[in-house]
Amino acid sequence: MNAISVLSEDQLRGAVPLTLDVVDCIENAFKILAQDGVVMPPVLSMHLPMVNGEVDIKTAYLPGFSGFAVKVSPGFFNNPALGLASTSGLMVLFSAQTGQVQAVLLDNGYLTDLRTAAAGAVAARALSRPDAHRAAIFGAGTQALLQLQALCLVRPIKQATIWARNPDQAVQAARIASTRLGIAVDVITDPAKAVAGADIIITTTPATQPIVMAEWLQAGQHITAMGSDQSSKNELEAACLTRADLYVADRFSQTKTMGELRAAIEAGVIDRDRIDHSPNLAELSDVLTGKHHGRRTSDDITIADLTGTGAQDTAIATYALAAIHKGGHGT
Amino acid sequence: MNAISVLSEDQLRGAVPLTLDVVDCIENAFKILAQDGVVMPPVLSMHLPMVNGEVDIKTAYLPGFSGFAVKVSPGFFNNPALGLASTSGLMVLFSAQTGQVQAVLLDNGYLTDLRTAAAGAVAARALSRPDAHRAAIFGAGTQALLQLQALCLVRPIKQATIWARNPDQAVQAARIASTRLGIAVDVITDPAKAVAGADIIITTTPATQPIVMAEWLQAGQHITAMGSDQSSKNELEAACLTRADLYVADRFSQTKTMGELRAAIEAGVIDRDRIDHSPNLAELSDVLTGKHHGRRTSDDITIADLTGTGAQDTAIATYALAAIHKGGHGT
Repeated sequence: MNAISVLSEDQLRGAVPLTLDVVDCIENAFKILAQDGVVMPPVLSMHLPMVNGEVDIKTAYLPGFSGFAVKVSPGFFNNPALGLASTSGLMVLFSAQTGQVQAVLLDNGYLTDLRTAAAGAVAARALSRPDAHRAAIFGAGTQALLQLQALCLVRPIKQATIWARNPDQAVQAARIASTRLGIAVDVITDPAKAVAGADIIITTTPATQPIVMAEWLQAGQHITAMGSDQSSKNELEAACLTRADLYVADRFSQTKTMGELRAAIEAGVIDRDRIDHSPNLAELSDVLTGKHHGRRTSDDITIADLTGTGAQDTAIATYALAAIHKGGHGT
Repeated sequence: MNAISVLSEDQLRGAVPLTLDVVDCIENAFKILAQDGVVMPPVLSMHLPMVNGEVDIKTAYLPGFSGFAVKVSPGFFNNPALGLASTSGLMVLFSAQTGQVQAVLLDNGYLTDLRTAAAGAVAARALSRPDAHRAAIFGAGTQALLQLQALCLVRPIKQATIWARNPDQAVQAARIASTRLGIAVDVITDPAKAVAGADIIITTTPATQPIVMAEWLQAGQHITAMGSDQSSKNELEAACLTRADLYVADRFSQTKTMGELRAAIEAGVIDRDRIDHSPNLAELSDVLTGKHHGRRTSDDITIADLTGTGAQDTAIATYALAAIHKGGHGT
């Protein structure tokens, strides 16, 4: 019998804050995705309309990692009425040599929040102008705040705006963000103006209809869309993807079935069969490893479409367990 | 925060032995599979040839159950050289109302062994002649012993034979089974003779080529094939399925991609498009609920093809947690 570490949400929150180290950890996972030997099966999605819920299960084997994570993310959307968060879940880390359970990370969705925010920072660092200093955040949830926080780690953000369908939530989120990050964060009610005044736009909503229109986009901007992770979701008008000089997926196999790319394919603006051959469409891993040129001029418009990969889960689970062991917190 | 029970293999082995109660629990899960409202996604399989491993993830939402399990089953086939079992894994039970983690069952594969053996008993009770008293077991592993043990709970088994590719393992398994069950258990080296002398035949091997031939089968016999749970595995000659009067799948969607049905379809003896329309092909749930007539005469030959369902995992995890709570063993 091997010893199994069982870690609580509090332990994990304490040992693994959102830092540049975490961003680097997730960037490394994306770089490995460009290598041979990665095994990342399609997401297992279980839809439970009778209880207004869904469950996503992700995993990935990454060469060079001593373990692989299996991550279960339930989203139950009646929970807020019960005073509970919609999302929860856990990660389990298995030995990549023996398959035995190494650790159970009862993170209640925290590590997913963290690796998702970190992926936003990885995309922004790879694709946005280095001098980008104005951010517009669409959405006012936990992930909206974390995305802005992660962005501040990689770009000299001086001011930000928050747009949300619920203005009260936007006000609250702006107040928290401003205090936490020490920058000016304002609520904005006109989404077109939010886009107009930003160098980097991040969409982090559960929208099922576009909230950012192509005609609003301006030269030099970078957009990270990370709300869409189901085939029913959509944040960017399809024409955004052709208006952009470069579209970058976290993984084509995922974005074409559940990201902004899916909506653009269904709208007929992108040909599903030409994805692998278009120089304007790339995977983040190829940009990070230099296989794709990425942004070419300061006027390019770039889009990152993030659906969340099992590779990020394996990376953050491995990182978290190491951080706990380093800190001497076992269980 | 909800309290999460974390249960060890020892606790689970102590609280959940293989009894008729467990068989009934699994039978109930199969009956529910015939109802509307079941959500059982395809198995997530991750193949890791570089480490001679595979990982299967199963889940199912069953109406009326307060929770659903996610089960992760790694099989790493270099493990025996390290003195470890090939299979391991765990189950996690989530609330069907909120999605929150209720319990982590660190069973190391024990509950999978149990629910797999119980499904064999459910199939034998539903399909074999009530007076069946002679069993032939193909295979000599943990599951071979458990299948025989479970069978003895539902049929008046008086004698059994064990055939295995490795005769030493067969000898050892026969000795253990005889002691544990108090019946005559003999090793047999001729597989045709093993079949000839049995009322019930159970195959529980990792075979990738048929080990039971159609011409060996005799009137009145029942065969449960449970070794095949991957598209590469196969225990019964394809003609067995047409020689039989009734073929019963645990779930067509699974057996046609990874059970004996897959091999029969590939061999061309069964038409994939006519599965749902043939009176000689049924699902176990329909036999148990009377939607299908099942065995009709004492001369019928019946086959059960078991690949293992997420429904069984949800049922056994729920049962195990209740047994632990009833016994006052929490963590």
